[in-house]
Amino acid sequence: MSADPRLLANAIRALSMDAVQAANSGHPGMPMGMADAATILFTEYLKYDPQDPDWHDRDRFVLSAGHGSMLIYSLLHLTGYARPTIEDIKGFRQLGSPCAGHPENFMLKGVEATTGPLGQGFAMAVGMAIAERHLNAVFGDDLVDHRTWVISGDGDLMEGINHEAVGLAGHLQLGRLNVLWDNNKITIDGATDLSTSEDIPGRYRASGWHVVACGGHDFDSIRRALDEAVADPRPSLIDCRTIIGWGAPNKQGTSATHGSALGAEEVAAARKQLVWDSEPFDLPEPIVAEWRKAGARSARLHEKWRARLAASAHREEFVRRMEGRLPDGMAKSDYFDWLAANPQKVATRKASELALEAINTVLPETIGGSADLTGSNNTKTKAQKPLTKEDYSGRYIYYGIREFGMAAAMNGMALHGGVIPYGGTFLVFSDYCRPAIRLSALQGARVVYVMSHDSIGLGEDGPTHQPVEHLTSLRLIPNLAVFRPADAVETAECWALALERREGPSLLALTRQNLPQLRLERTENLCARGAYRLRGAGAARRVVLVATGSEVELAMKVADALEGQGMGADVVSMPCWSLFDAQEPAYRADILPDGVLRVSIEAGTTLGWERYTGPDGIRIGLDRFGASAPAEDLFQRFGFTAEAIVPQILAAL
Amino acid sequence: MSADPRLLANAIRALSMDAVQAANSGHPGMPMGMADAATILFTEYLKYDPQDPDWHDRDRFVLSAGHGSMLIYSLLHLTGYARPTIEDIKGFRQLGSPCAGHPENFMLKGVEATTGPLGQGFAMAVGMAIAERHLNAVFGDDLVDHRTWVISGDGDLMEGINHEAVGLAGHLQLGRLNVLWDNNKITIDGATDLSTSEDIPGRYRASGWHVVACGGHDFDSIRRALDEAVADPRPSLIDCRTIIGWGAPNKQGTSATHGSALGAEEVAAARKQLVWDSEPFDLPEPIVAEWRKAGARSARLHEKWRARLAASAHREEFVRRMEGRLPDGMAKSDYFDWLAANPQKVATRKASELALEAINTVLPETIGGSADLTGSNNTKTKAQKPLTKEDYSGRYIYYGIREFGMAAAMNGMALHGGVIPYGGTFLVFSDYCRPAIRLSALQGARVVYVMSHDSIGLGEDGPTHQPVEHLTSLRLIPNLAVFRPADAVETAECWALALERREGPSLLALTRQNLPQLRLERTENLCARGAYRLRGAGAARRVVLVATGSEVELAMKVADALEGQGMGADVVSMPCWSLFDAQEPAYRADILPDGVLRVSIEAGTTLGWERYTGPDGIRIGLDRFGASAPAEDLFQRFGFTAEAIVPQILAAL
Repeated sequence: MSADPRLLANAIRALSMDAVQAANSGHPGMPMGMADAATILFTEYLKYDPQDPDWHDRDRFVLSAGHGSMLIYSLLHLTGYARPTIEDIKGFRQLGSPCAGHPENFMLKGVEATTGPLGQGFAMAVGMAIAERHLNAVFGDDLVDHRTWVISGDGDLMEGINHEAVGLAGHLQLGRLNVLWDNNKITIDGATDLSTSEDIPGRYRASGWHVVACGGHDFDSIRRALDEAVADPRPSLIDCRTIIGWGAPNKQGTSATHGSALGAEEVAAARKQLVWDSEPFDLPEPIVAEWRKAGARSARLHEKWRARLAASAHREEFVRRMEGRLPDGMAKSDYFDWLAANPQKVATRKASELALEAINTVLPETIGGSADLTGSNNTKTKAQKPLTKEDYSGRYIYYGIREFGMAAAMNGMALHGGVIPYGGTFLVFSDYCRPAIRLSALQGARVVYVMSHDSIGLGEDGPTHQPVEHLTSLRLIPNLAVFRPADAVETAECWALALERREGPSLLALTRQNLPQLRLERTENLCARGAYRLRGAGAARRVVLVATGSEVELAMKVADALEGQGMGADVVSMPCWSLFDAQEPAYRADILPDGVLRVSIEAGTTLGWERYTGPDGIRIGLDRFGASAPAEDLFQRFGFTAEAIVPQILAAL
Repeated sequence: MSADPRLLANAIRALSMDAVQAANSGHPGMPMGMADAATILFTEYLKYDPQDPDWHDRDRFVLSAGHGSMLIYSLLHLTGYARPTIEDIKGFRQLGSPCAGHPENFMLKGVEATTGPLGQGFAMAVGMAIAERHLNAVFGDDLVDHRTWVISGDGDLMEGINHEAVGLAGHLQLGRLNVLWDNNKITIDGATDLSTSEDIPGRYRASGWHVVACGGHDFDSIRRALDEAVADPRPSLIDCRTIIGWGAPNKQGTSATHGSALGAEEVAAARKQLVWDSEPFDLPEPIVAEWRKAGARSARLHEKWRARLAASAHREEFVRRMEGRLPDGMAKSDYFDWLAANPQKVATRKASELALEAINTVLPETIGGSADLTGSNNTKTKAQKPLTKEDYSGRYIYYGIREFGMAAAMNGMALHGGVIPYGGTFLVFSDYCRPAIRLSALQGARVVYVMSHDSIGLGEDGPTHQPVEHLTSLRLIPNLAVFRPADAVETAECWALALERREGPSLLALTRQNLPQLRLERTENLCARGAYRLRGAGAARRVVLVATGSEVELAMKVADALEGQGMGADVVSMPCWSLFDAQEPAYRADILPDGVLRVSIEAGTTLGWERYTGPDGIRIGLDRFGASAPAEDLFQRFGFTAEAIVPQILAAL
């Protein structure tokens, strides 16, 4: 660079404090503190092309300290991305501006991940770095050869998920992952030593990381540290000793700069201190020109890459995978024919494994894993080799006892593109990764959660391990498709829907216990409508039984008993509420008609089922914690038997 | 001890493998591997009295690796607790036995915490150790002077929450906390090196812990390590190098012993290996006698303590606090009178602070805190000094950016007794600590969660920070009271209910934005009924508007508009669903009558509201993620205005 980087950095500082001041809301301290390091990163190290933000081989940059969103908005604007425009930045934190309070990946190109919930950006970057190494192993250096960069704050590092992410990255020796730690010793409540006494570099070294320190406002020191990080084969933590709010003469170095506007007076004082004479949002042309030049730095690399791609034998497959398109003909799998001919009485977790055997064979982009429950979640198929530091081409990850880290890593992998991650744990431990499931949904990331042991049917492990409220609490998350299949056919159908669902995550709730195959004929994908009539009433219909998962078998028994007494009963299987809610009213009215008694059966909390049963219906469920006993005893104890349910129905009729 | 500790330990091994074998379900490997260390702990170090398991000054022991539940059941039985009996142990994992799959604090005295969800036992122990030091600072060595012991497995240490717990314990220098790490290098998926390469002692040292190693099957080595741990002023990690399933000759040292019965053949082989001739569940009398003697070890200490208590000036107050009784006259606080006379137009988070000023003055057992959002959650009252390693008498904890660790620590504090913990974060980050909230509920722990910024009303921070699905997802957790007060009076009422609720946790969802005081007269606690008629219809009633929190004000405006058109509208405030559901049918029918249009208004997902509106009612809510903008713009954009709601009601009438 010919220009003084301080001048370039001050453009970030000015934009940041001006935007926060205009919104009278936001976080100026972090962008002002990290402006110098970010300037060096974006003008000298980061590989990207503002003219084509989707360049598959770009470096990924994640602002894990997402509250400092003005840093990334400034950088994108200055380096020449089409958006945000200066008008967008003037609209910071206002309705309609893509410059949201925290960076949203669906608002702006160049924002690789939605960040703000602390710790998760970092952990998603680990997933991106995994995806990069995996695709590199599959497609070679010519097509995939990039780095993942992160800016993290103290909050990111204090969150529990950081331990999981650091452990995973260290174990897999993700040397392409470089994290700049904004070590400003300030959190919202005050100095970090109010709440922590940790030797952070010591902890990172204990997990196999390389750690290097630099003066966060000393450009040569920053360069030396970044060089060292790039050269080291381990993941690197770059300890940037910074001053929060650098440039604001009276407030810098204090938590006062963290989460609110500096105030007109301090902004004026900072302008003076920074020798920055321009009006708010006005950027000196020479500085903009230097930034644009920096933004164009990698255009030639990009051109060469394009040529290599054009010449590559892998071109078509690579592009298909990076664009997230499934191969043609996926839906016509022979597996459904095989199931129709060979009914399986298996747990749906086992049915999921059977489906995965078919899927993983034809879909090379799946990467499976489990948070240390491989044999219980049935997530590993026979041909899957582990992805290890010695062999990144493997397609199975032993995530360890790191549910949250796994989920966030899967988000990062999905956002990186080129892979479709799925990973397992027990349904009850969806709570452990719930913040990442929410981010899958918000970001529209195609992640498939394989959650087995989905009710008291898991038996002896008891209430700590028995999900009760989880199904409906997950159904509440917008844009998450929650599937609870009833047999092997539905499990395969739900898997197909999950894979086809490019717009967001899916979660499969699967049984520990065996279930009979209820669907014996080859049909279209009936789960696609969310709910369907599995069996119509024989006698005149008086009842509609609606059930999910393992309770569909029970509903069939209840229907048999009712029919035996001359009461017609439909059995409706409802594997996915949200898909059903999206059907036409006529379809919904046909499946759940008025004027008959509607009864829901699900081994979980009843709240929410009123939507389908109406107030006069019956909701068979479990509105308390479970207990430790064999599954059959629990189903008996909690009334999940035809003997217990039929009298309630007869009484209501 | 005169007896060979190996013989004593083998009694644990025999009971554990026999019980798991009988249940054909469970985890023998851990109890067999840790039997030696646990024997030394329970026969030579731990201070407890099986004749009085509730002795307030007993050491606390937490089996964080809760899957190894047969270890604690064996220990309690052998040392002479009334339960579990040998019959209880024969019923391991069966309905009706207190020997549940995982240890449940509500099933057995001597089980200090419900464990199994990994990482949480350890983190609860940190809370117990905090409570101990605090009470010691308040009541002195004479009454409070004990240790907290933990047995943790690799899973506990790999979970993210471990980082938070270790950081907090190290920062507060909880030297009375000693953790025995069952370092057997095995997890469910296989060897730990499948998924981790961490230098665990290095990480602990980096957080200010003392680490000492021992041979886990070498009694002198165990003693040396425990002595060193006891002597060191820092919290200690005792690295016990063990062999999982020690004694099972063909399976020990492998994951095959972790989570399933050894099988009859291997049990027989282990009997041979251990030279253990007794029949299953049959314990040699001399060994039982030695164990009982060990169990009686601290009886004399207990007697002396009783004498000190009897003589103590603090006796009454100490016992009141340890038994969890509130002081008399709490309910008659002048604060309600003051509010009636001085209506407050404040955010409910501020109203919570006002209530806390009154509460903390009269209730010395409250310990507040926040996960680095003190100024936002309004959790700190003026007189509260911080609890620090220099001064444990403080009543405010800067938990740092550790939501999950905070929640688990609060569980531990509540379980320890003598304190009532409350702690804050943003409502959206309830997801980060949800697994601990669930354990508060399951364990019946009186913890108060103060969760502010409870809707899109938080404004500019955007969808990552705006709870949408959270209120109802929390309402789904059994035994959790979720309160969403509408003004300063309701906030104080909900606080009173939360404090009086000894049987479980409460969560207060509080606004960022100001709300008018709607309740101007001094009344009984109306929130106690969960929902109540805030204002009856003026004109003939056509509509009942049901709202919570900040939307009650909006419901009043909607009612005004309807009344202006001659349509009578009740306004019902519903701060707590579960309390309302527990009312008599007649009360519920009076508040939510049939035959009129029922309309719910809440700035969150609508699923679940069908319970109160019926299918023909209207549910005003937000079934999508929010957006970044000032609060007023968001309420406008998403239809939370009288102008948007009234026409929908008129159309439905």
